[in-house]
Amino acid sequence: MSTTNSLDTLIQALRRLPGVGVKSAARMAFHLLQHDRAGALALSQALSQAVGSMRHCARCHTFCEAEVCEVCLDPERDATRLCVVETPADQSALERTAAFHGLYFVLMGRISPLDGIGPNDIGLKKLLDRATDGVVQEVILATNFTAEGETTAHVVSEALKNRGLRVTRLARGVPVGSELEYVDLGTIAHALADRR
Amino acid sequence: MSTTNSLDTLIQALRRLPGVGVKSAARMAFHLLQHDRAGALALSQALSQAVGSMRHCARCHTFCEAEVCEVCLDPERDATRLCVVETPADQSALERTAAFHGLYFVLMGRISPLDGIGPNDIGLKKLLDRATDGVVQEVILATNFTAEGETTAHVVSEALKNRGLRVTRLARGVPVGSELEYVDLGTIAHALADRR
Repeated sequence: MSTTNSLDTLIQALRRLPGVGVKSAARMAFHLLQHDRAGALALSQALSQAVGSMRHCARCHTFCEAEVCEVCLDPERDATRLCVVETPADQSALERTAAFHGLYFVLMGRISPLDGIGPNDIGLKKLLDRATDGVVQEVILATNFTAEGETTAHVVSEALKNRGLRVTRLARGVPVGSELEYVDLGTIAHALADRR
Repeated sequence: MSTTNSLDTLIQALRRLPGVGVKSAARMAFHLLQHDRAGALALSQALSQAVGSMRHCARCHTFCEAEVCEVCLDPERDATRLCVVETPADQSALERTAAFHGLYFVLMGRISPLDGIGPNDIGLKKLLDRATDGVVQEVILATNFTAEGETTAHVVSEALKNRGLRVTRLARGVPVGSELEYVDLGTIAHALADRR
């Protein structure tokens, strides 16, 4: 092996990225060092900058650099509706639809007993405090439609209903643009049950 | 959008990694900031460290921190055989076989006219100087068996043969452990032609 220490260290560090194995990491390290050293320095800088400045919004728990994020501070938004999502990426997806004008709460994860992630790890207590501020009237659960997402929605829903809040869930159904023949049976069954 | 500047900057920087699109970059940024800030700092450090210290071996052109890499300095190696590879990863693959005890020359790329990469960009002149040091007797071309790798092998081979060196190429044939039925026809044809 002609590779020396700082290259090995870089490959090991790249492997900590999700979905990156040893071959991808080696390819990334080679690309950066051979073709894009400016990119490597930009990434180094962006990482330390983000770690240093990103914290959680005091109201919705998403990443932000200020005490409270822009969305939570926006007076145009409907503060009576609170949408609960798993990650900032899910929030971005909802924002891009431009169909929701309320506020968010970002769990920054989901309940996943197999991974040892319980209700306390996703800030359930913080969500309950947030949702019972007296202004929120409806909580819309927009966690993913996976086993973990459904579990999370169920747990959150039970806790919120006990406090007398109206709790709704994103509709399950046939995706727009899809042909029934290729839609899975569980989705069709749900779309039938929830027909309108 | 609740994402703020240093998060966007990080996502953009991660996209410069090969094979990483905007969704993967967002997932990586989220993972690092939410679950592995130590990993983010380690990666930041490893990147700036590697960019600062990695340069090219004066003899074989691979990445190394010293003037000449460990392989080139190893007196146990057979200096009469020089193996030409495209990348340090290819060199590692050959080293892991423990079947080659000569020295290497790492092109750090391949000739690829479509990408504007010609013979000068892969250090052909440096290779010719290296191979005509009076000690090297055989040059083994171990570039990849892709269109670009074959082109590179052809160009390098012609240049070296003009200087009276013995030039060989890794054997093409049926991979060990494979069933003929599933091997592509070009490979079988080459294996037939090169039968022994």
